[in-house]
Amino acid sequence: MTDKPLLFTPGPLSTSKATKSAMLRDWGSRDTEFIALTREISLTLEKIAGVEQGAPSHNCVLIQGSGTFVVEATIDTLIPRDANILVLVNGAYGRRMAKICQIHERSYITLETDEDTPPTANQVTQLLKKDKSITHVLAVHCETTSGILNPISEIASAVAKAGRFLIIDAMSSFGALPLRVSNIKCAAIVASSNKCLEGVPGVGFAIVDKTILSNSEKNASSLSLDLFDQWQNFENTGQWRFTPPTHVLAALRQALIEHDADGGVEGRGYRYLENCETLIQGMKTLGFKPYLRNELQAPIIVTFHQPRIKNFNFAEFYSRLLERGFMIYPGKITKVDSFRIGCIGQIQKFDMKNLVEAVAGVVAEMGVKLK
Amino acid sequence: MTDKPLLFTPGPLSTSKATKSAMLRDWGSRDTEFIALTREISLTLEKIAGVEQGAPSHNCVLIQGSGTFVVEATIDTLIPRDANILVLVNGAYGRRMAKICQIHERSYITLETDEDTPPTANQVTQLLKKDKSITHVLAVHCETTSGILNPISEIASAVAKAGRFLIIDAMSSFGALPLRVSNIKCAAIVASSNKCLEGVPGVGFAIVDKTILSNSEKNASSLSLDLFDQWQNFENTGQWRFTPPTHVLAALRQALIEHDADGGVEGRGYRYLENCETLIQGMKTLGFKPYLRNELQAPIIVTFHQPRIKNFNFAEFYSRLLERGFMIYPGKITKVDSFRIGCIGQIQKFDMKNLVEAVAGVVAEMGVKLK
Repeated sequence: MTDKPLLFTPGPLSTSKATKSAMLRDWGSRDTEFIALTREISLTLEKIAGVEQGAPSHNCVLIQGSGTFVVEATIDTLIPRDANILVLVNGAYGRRMAKICQIHERSYITLETDEDTPPTANQVTQLLKKDKSITHVLAVHCETTSGILNPISEIASAVAKAGRFLIIDAMSSFGALPLRVSNIKCAAIVASSNKCLEGVPGVGFAIVDKTILSNSEKNASSLSLDLFDQWQNFENTGQWRFTPPTHVLAALRQALIEHDADGGVEGRGYRYLENCETLIQGMKTLGFKPYLRNELQAPIIVTFHQPRIKNFNFAEFYSRLLERGFMIYPGKITKVDSFRIGCIGQIQKFDMKNLVEAVAGVVAEMGVKLK
Repeated sequence: MTDKPLLFTPGPLSTSKATKSAMLRDWGSRDTEFIALTREISLTLEKIAGVEQGAPSHNCVLIQGSGTFVVEATIDTLIPRDANILVLVNGAYGRRMAKICQIHERSYITLETDEDTPPTANQVTQLLKKDKSITHVLAVHCETTSGILNPISEIASAVAKAGRFLIIDAMSSFGALPLRVSNIKCAAIVASSNKCLEGVPGVGFAIVDKTILSNSEKNASSLSLDLFDQWQNFENTGQWRFTPPTHVLAALRQALIEHDADGGVEGRGYRYLENCETLIQGMKTLGFKPYLRNELQAPIIVTFHQPRIKNFNFAEFYSRLLERGFMIYPGKITKVDSFRIGCIGQIQKFDMKNLVEAVAGVVAEMGVKLK
């Protein structure tokens, strides 16, 4: 097995050898050892989310599937049928939450800002003041579409001050950017195994306010995606209702040990920030332009404008980098012509330097003149 | 890493070293190589289900999560809101399908038989004759609750003759018991990675009639569990809509290679049958009694009556076997006092012999006299 290619993607991403090796064992999903593993993961995730041990305000509820599965489960379980929702949208993931509201026949409005523009706390305050019927606000912490960091702390304060409930999609920030329920008042934080926690994909989780969770029985319109039922089963038996991805969870436990060894949220965030700065600086030197202003850039994924020159072909650029062992993200979802490079996962500053050098080589090979 | 304990469970189960080792690499989920891997898996699963290559009648749609996720997605996507459903129930998984119908507000009735009694084709025919409003029938092939084999071929004929649609939960039989859409007329067969295919858990799939699938747009009441949308995205881009469990899928591909090397459905079924017979014979010799009559026993999992004697404590029995490296299934879901031992996964006849010897040793240690 080779370690190549190295992934510069927003998750699934490069994981450590030890994390992958934790999958080299089979687990009985109803055995006590696996029950203990599940509990250990839940407690660790609560700790990362700043939940006080002993008398926890929030509980971690794990659920099978991708990030979208847990976002949908959280919305459909926690938000009553007669609620009115405000969805903050400045990219694909905000839009997806709005779509989930629509599919689940929840009444909602959106506050849409440009992909390079975060919503402000003031806008939220004004909207909540104007429309007293709004009960819930949905926000994305770091919108992977562009890589923009939304001001979640300010938004949370605005929502709390107005006495409404906030659900945060922290998929691509959880574990690397500070997000503690002790400071940031929210009904739920939703994330997954395979982003900044550096696990493998297959499981998501929500850190949910216990009171809200307790009152959410029979809200969900699904069996599999009923977060209340899932929570109750964990509480009563310690077991998963339905077959869990045992190997994925074993990998997540190992990844969480490494997260702690990395210095927790602070240490990991610092490494990603260094990665991000090294990347942006290097790419700028080559003549590439980041899409976002620097103060809006989360250290997770960077969007670069595609050079507007004749002989720049992204598919070729991508393949040539891949041949050299560097996999950048192939998809673009912003409205402008752009491409994205991830800064997260088991990659270090020197990997970013190597990547930039590879980009320089590929650009030269392609005969592209950027400056 | 140790290979112990060996799992005698109905899935998650013991997988091969090569299958687990296939997870020692990270994949970019939107890269062409991973798109090819996904396609290879889908085509192989179609082949196992007897779908003709070239002009396929059915398509394989993969979906994240446990088996229940794909059962729910299939029911909610393929069955229109105004349908009337007959659910055949003789255990927990039939009951679960009925629960899914209820949650999704589909009108349904059940034909319930005892856990040791399969429904007959004649009962189905009579019911469908009596109630013309029934449009869909849901049946479990092998009901893991007891290990009973339901007469799916006869049921499928009865349903087809009556001009109704059949959805088969083949979770614990797919890949080891014959089930070919060329012989068995059905709208869908639903199964998962971690049973007789001997992959790791985290992904399920449905082999769905293409015409029915084509007509199922906007049926589903969920985004994540919308099988039509999932299928369309695979058709249009080859990609997963939402982050796939990349490592689980890499393991499944390897498991499918081994399934073929094992002699496909026939070879695998034969190995499991030998396992099952060795187990039952050995346990009978020790004085344990199987719950099912032999002709109803599928070679997947065997339910044994708990001995009705004073000093038999199942928790102790389980732990002592586990200490010796044998993990049997800890849960019972039948109505009678019983325990279950799986015959599937990377276990051979000699493993069953070793298990029976270990049972003999444990029983002696516990001072249990069975005869």
